[in-house]
Amino acid sequence: MKKANRVNIGMIGGGTVGSGVFHALQKNSALMASRLGVTVNIVKVAVKAFDEPRPYPIPPSVMTLNWQEVVNDPAVHIVIELVGGTTIAKTMVLAALKLGKPVITANKALLAAHGPELFAAASQHNTNLYYEASVAGGIPIIKVVRESLVGNQFERIYGIVNGTCNYILTRMKREGADFADVLKDAQRLGYAEAEPSLDVDGHDAAHKIGILASLAHGFWVNQKDIHVEGIRAITKLDIQFATQLGYTIKLLGIVKKVAAPAGGRKAQAPNGAQVQVSVYPTLVPDGHVLASVNDVFNAIFVRGDVVGDTLYYGRGAGKDATASAVLSDVADAALDLHHSSENRVPSFVPHERHGAVQPIEDSVAKYYVRLSVVDKPGVIAQVSAILGRAKISIASLIQPEGHEGDVVPLILMMHAAPYSAMSRALRAIGQLPAVKAPPMMIRVEDFA
Amino acid sequence: MKKANRVNIGMIGGGTVGSGVFHALQKNSALMASRLGVTVNIVKVAVKAFDEPRPYPIPPSVMTLNWQEVVNDPAVHIVIELVGGTTIAKTMVLAALKLGKPVITANKALLAAHGPELFAAASQHNTNLYYEASVAGGIPIIKVVRESLVGNQFERIYGIVNGTCNYILTRMKREGADFADVLKDAQRLGYAEAEPSLDVDGHDAAHKIGILASLAHGFWVNQKDIHVEGIRAITKLDIQFATQLGYTIKLLGIVKKVAAPAGGRKAQAPNGAQVQVSVYPTLVPDGHVLASVNDVFNAIFVRGDVVGDTLYYGRGAGKDATASAVLSDVADAALDLHHSSENRVPSFVPHERHGAVQPIEDSVAKYYVRLSVVDKPGVIAQVSAILGRAKISIASLIQPEGHEGDVVPLILMMHAAPYSAMSRALRAIGQLPAVKAPPMMIRVEDFA
Repeated sequence: MKKANRVNIGMIGGGTVGSGVFHALQKNSALMASRLGVTVNIVKVAVKAFDEPRPYPIPPSVMTLNWQEVVNDPAVHIVIELVGGTTIAKTMVLAALKLGKPVITANKALLAAHGPELFAAASQHNTNLYYEASVAGGIPIIKVVRESLVGNQFERIYGIVNGTCNYILTRMKREGADFADVLKDAQRLGYAEAEPSLDVDGHDAAHKIGILASLAHGFWVNQKDIHVEGIRAITKLDIQFATQLGYTIKLLGIVKKVAAPAGGRKAQAPNGAQVQVSVYPTLVPDGHVLASVNDVFNAIFVRGDVVGDTLYYGRGAGKDATASAVLSDVADAALDLHHSSENRVPSFVPHERHGAVQPIEDSVAKYYVRLSVVDKPGVIAQVSAILGRAKISIASLIQPEGHEGDVVPLILMMHAAPYSAMSRALRAIGQLPAVKAPPMMIRVEDFA
Repeated sequence: MKKANRVNIGMIGGGTVGSGVFHALQKNSALMASRLGVTVNIVKVAVKAFDEPRPYPIPPSVMTLNWQEVVNDPAVHIVIELVGGTTIAKTMVLAALKLGKPVITANKALLAAHGPELFAAASQHNTNLYYEASVAGGIPIIKVVRESLVGNQFERIYGIVNGTCNYILTRMKREGADFADVLKDAQRLGYAEAEPSLDVDGHDAAHKIGILASLAHGFWVNQKDIHVEGIRAITKLDIQFATQLGYTIKLLGIVKKVAAPAGGRKAQAPNGAQVQVSVYPTLVPDGHVLASVNDVFNAIFVRGDVVGDTLYYGRGAGKDATASAVLSDVADAALDLHHSSENRVPSFVPHERHGAVQPIEDSVAKYYVRLSVVDKPGVIAQVSAILGRAKISIASLIQPEGHEGDVVPLILMMHAAPYSAMSRALRAIGQLPAVKAPPMMIRVEDFA
């Protein structure tokens, strides 16, 4: 396969994204060939059914129902995996890597579950696994983090990486609507799945932010170590109060390099980086660029120690945006074959031996807390006393007007405090007789 | 130099940016080495004077006053050029390329003036010229356009690529201040040069947008073909009226693929792309992400036919942001040496034989026009008649309140029209006896 001027692609998966890749490569193949000096062609596509519905046509002559025909065809130099899931997709990817064939995948769930095993297989067979499309669709964040910012330590990464959640939160704010109603409409319009848990509970964002955190910090971040909160609990009241306070609520994937605790408990990284890796709804100040990322758009804010603050914005999903990312990998894979530089930029370099994910209890944040309290004197004193004992300072306390009845909202904005203290205080506050519903807590990010 | 695990860098220029690169590489060299599998070291730096002021120290042991010692040293594998200017810098870059040494430059003026000659020299000597730092500082836009979006046709590029202009426009809007006052303060604070013309007249932005346009469209865009307007003529009145209309004024570098004119006049690209390449102040709708890019920050909005809308944001200048971009090129150059893949991604691929820059007269835009008119009946009729004869439709016409006296402002928002028609109409309007100052015209962009 050395110095091939013509590189053949085999694709597994010919549905929505697969047909998008086929279409884009067909449309721009001459352009890509002139830019790369290498011609790339999709010669074989394994599909579920010849006549499955697809937005762009794929000629029946290149289709097969047998994925092994794609992987094993000696004329196929590069394999694209677009079937999704973590079982059969893993078998397919490993089969191709074992033949020394570079693999391109858009499968974030697969990487999140089996990344190290797949990267090891690629390395062992002197080939590469490319995954630009697995995080944030058309935004070229993998290549940016891996190559463009290679001279940086990654101090902070904040990502709006789930389009469904961002769409729902955008509409909740715009329309003053409640989560359940917007979700129902989003499902009707095709912006959310019938079973929405993967998106709205934050798991999809956790897959992506885990991949980014691993790449940025050089040690593999396991999904089980990522603290994940979704957006189901956000109410229109929270969005309304956040707006009044000058904030927009976004679901953020967060990767923060933190100082290793000096002899503190659970110090897992005595000589290396400790990194907070989390997904949770966050109050973002309205002046910050992330606050204006709306609808299904994604954006990733990256702070490097050399480059400072940067942001990358675009469509995080969809057949065309994903196809653009796949074509970027196709180009790299084809060039690496052409120049025999298969390991020029490995999939993943585990360069941080002592890296560890910070336990969420140790993470420090500012907090927005909404309480439903009995409208009687003394409640604020009780709440303040609990927070005082927990050494948590109140930055501001608001009793919003226009709420009448026995039970009224009370909003507290807290200065920075460890989550261990905050969660204990919230439990105690929730047990006060005057507090009539579980406290609602959302973290506040000032990007300092 | 094949398979070198240790790559030595020689740097020409040890002032602000040079010391930034030295510092960043020193700080993160172990990290880069573990990520790349190659160790990079700066072994020699040519400086103007050993004791010139620099924000970070460079050890005297690596300094020389003779740039040829850097280029000709057999131990130097890669040369970084950071001296600026277009004369001696050209000699230096060519000297290194002729020795087959890859060159990294941050010099946009040099590329704008002599790009094709330098790229040809790199190609002829089987090496490469890297220039990530030449456009938009720390934003990795060169690599994004060249590699990450390689599968796209570039339909639109809009760049805020001059930090000085963006800083001035941001302060003018925030403070309701006039250009001259903010410029003076910006000069005092070091955000603008004593001789500000390169920035405020749009030439620096033209250098950068010319490089981006060339890379995106595959034919070399000469500076003389770029229509350039700066920001000197923008008044606080214009910013105030734009704000009232829901717009923010930004200096944009614009690259638009346009339909080749069907037998039209000046059709220079019968079979190829015609591209508008311009720099001018633009009314950007406040809801658009570019409107919220403030202060010295840069951002580039790229619309690809596959990926859709994307945006890249960060610091466009400064020793540290620029150093990050230089280190990205250092990594690519070192990897290319290590893997003997010197031409893997050439500096510039001239793939569009029929490309041409659209004459500005043929460009179509919407327009904001501010007139200073005598406050008497009949003026609007005269202005409307001229526009009607030029076949330019008025979208809205506003006589702002609160302006008293003999001469008052009149604001017109125009539907899309060719600039040839608009400029003729503006000349005719300017000659009306009731119009007391040259008409102020700013283009309006709706990003459709």
